[in-house]
Amino acid sequence: MQTNAIQQQVNNSTAQLISSEALLNHWQGHRKLTRKVIEAFPEDKLFDYSLGGMRSFGVMTIEIMDISHYGINGIITGKWNTLLDHSSGNIPAQAKAEILKQWDQITEQINEYWPQISIERFLEVELAFGAYENKNIGTILYAIDNEIHHRAQAYVYLRTLGIEPPAFWDRF
Amino acid sequence: MQTNAIQQQVNNSTAQLISSEALLNHWQGHRKLTRKVIEAFPEDKLFDYSLGGMRSFGVMTIEIMDISHYGINGIITGKWNTLLDHSSGNIPAQAKAEILKQWDQITEQINEYWPQISIERFLEVELAFGAYENKNIGTILYAIDNEIHHRAQAYVYLRTLGIEPPAFWDRF
Repeated sequence: MQTNAIQQQVNNSTAQLISSEALLNHWQGHRKLTRKVIEAFPEDKLFDYSLGGMRSFGVMTIEIMDISHYGINGIITGKWNTLLDHSSGNIPAQAKAEILKQWDQITEQINEYWPQISIERFLEVELAFGAYENKNIGTILYAIDNEIHHRAQAYVYLRTLGIEPPAFWDRF
Repeated sequence: MQTNAIQQQVNNSTAQLISSEALLNHWQGHRKLTRKVIEAFPEDKLFDYSLGGMRSFGVMTIEIMDISHYGINGIITGKWNTLLDHSSGNIPAQAKAEILKQWDQITEQINEYWPQISIERFLEVELAFGAYENKNIGTILYAIDNEIHHRAQAYVYLRTLGIEPPAFWDRF
């Protein structure tokens, strides 16, 4: 093969289906929407409202934050915290302002750590949270999906409380 | 640069954060779970149950199928169908068996078309469904996220009907 042809192959092959930067923006877009859902949720209902025997959205929010925080921390350090038991009885209520403050700290943490993670590191297999064997990229996708899943349940909680949730596409 | 060194660069640079094959498996894993949720839903409640004035899960399912079907078709052909209006009043009820049959046809369609779509094609910007300007990969991610979102709402519907939904991680 000619050197030029190989160099062309290098250039072509660097195109990522989903680049690291694109995935960061995708996740942070979802996190912006979830933050709006937390803001829209009535403070007195955050840890004291549910449907069908499910957990409160406050408890789900703490689960989302723990997975995000310990997840990005685990990928950066290679050391994994075990996740707390997020069943409702074990999670004390917190003020909405305190939750939003933690949320914003995690946003900054993700933005700081993410560019330091190489594609090779994302592709390594580890025991995430000491329990779930997965590629690190798989753990991130699980975290995003889990956030979408529980936030969508909060949409139902809000609707039954007579509150219109933010639009699903509103990730800005 | 030595040819060997360039060839090594080719090999390194072909590492995808999320390969096309990995994203297909990711989506089809979610689709397997959504299919289980449709199966778990009582037939007489599929188009006749909701919470908070929301749409029935039957109507949401038809929306998910339309986005998946017309989405993959648009990316393959470059021709985009406009989406139907999926507000509840405009979508007639269908038997669960008929829905599952269509679901399985779309599964096969996605598996057939997906390997024909190059990364360059996924990265092209188009007016998806004649309405939403996005990279094709962005349209696919939107479709997956929208499926997770509405399926999660069906989890709440099922819980309030006294039915335990399939586990979130059960994508097999």
